[in-house]
Amino acid sequence: MTILEFIQKRVNPDVRNEDELPFSITRSSIKKNDIITDYGEVENEAYYLVEGIVEVSINRSGDDEKIIDFFFANNFFCSYASFLTLQPSDVHIIALTDCVIDAIPREDLVNSYSNSLISNQLARYITEQIYLKRIKREKDLLTKPADERYLDVLKEEPDLLKHIPVNKVARYLGIHPESLSRIRKTIVS
Amino acid sequence: MTILEFIQKRVNPDVRNEDELPFSITRSSIKKNDIITDYGEVENEAYYLVEGIVEVSINRSGDDEKIIDFFFANNFFCSYASFLTLQPSDVHIIALTDCVIDAIPREDLVNSYSNSLISNQLARYITEQIYLKRIKREKDLLTKPADERYLDVLKEEPDLLKHIPVNKVARYLGIHPESLSRIRKTIVS
Repeated sequence: MTILEFIQKRVNPDVRNEDELPFSITRSSIKKNDIITDYGEVENEAYYLVEGIVEVSINRSGDDEKIIDFFFANNFFCSYASFLTLQPSDVHIIALTDCVIDAIPREDLVNSYSNSLISNQLARYITEQIYLKRIKREKDLLTKPADERYLDVLKEEPDLLKHIPVNKVARYLGIHPESLSRIRKTIVS
Repeated sequence: MTILEFIQKRVNPDVRNEDELPFSITRSSIKKNDIITDYGEVENEAYYLVEGIVEVSINRSGDDEKIIDFFFANNFFCSYASFLTLQPSDVHIIALTDCVIDAIPREDLVNSYSNSLISNQLARYITEQIYLKRIKREKDLLTKPADERYLDVLKEEPDLLKHIPVNKVARYLGIHPESLSRIRKTIVS
């Protein structure tokens, strides 16, 4: 799905072609483990993941680095708090596999908010989804045991373990890799 | 500030009068301690606080009820996850003082997303703000000591303690009321 198709499907079926979009889109290929947005950088693009998997981590004073998100193809991502506030990013985004990414310049998007229905529809929808995802993760961490959260992830992304090392999945679930191995054995048996 | 003035100031200076807004607005007065949205209710309105203070709490399995937010005049609020997903609310919203509230029906707002620039600008902006507030609170809870968080709240809302009982402020900060008393004494001296 392209950005145009994403917009047609999710927010505005009447948009016909890319010329109607009030922002430029630049495609690039990046290699596994490349940094997309680094700690301390100000986010000046919104990204759409055409192919691949992206990992978002956070490193808070005194804590180990935590994986807070994975993004899969056909989703938007970026260091959104930094994008909105122009403050340095406190998250770190890397390519977990080779990726193809479409980038929209922050300036294009933000400038078009004053008069573009499409830009506002798209940004409203994405922000709603980011907000809901965050609330859900927070709630799940507080209320669901690790095995249930693991099953949820598998249900949403059945191919997850083909592409993401077990130790990273464990760090995302906030548990020890050995606990995850136990959970996986229990589920298989 | 009215909803119209909020829109003119924050997202679209070209809107001239309320007739241009693609949703109805119903004003009502509610009494201190009245429930605005209850646990389990599906949120079918977005609210704008004209006067007063509103409290949002959450009650998660096994936990005590936690205060997660206060809203002051000139801000939008509602049980937003419920508003977006039509799932039962897991937060509880009450009037902490007598309040005047403007309500926008969910249906009006959501239906207007298909073609209204103003509705999408407004909802995009509010969702961004809700998201940033949530991130900030989460980050502050992890990285700042209680006294610093208390000073932040006082800086943002100097009149807070005139209207909110100390035990509620303590529950919002996630500390014991006695710890808050100690912090307040240290700050005064």
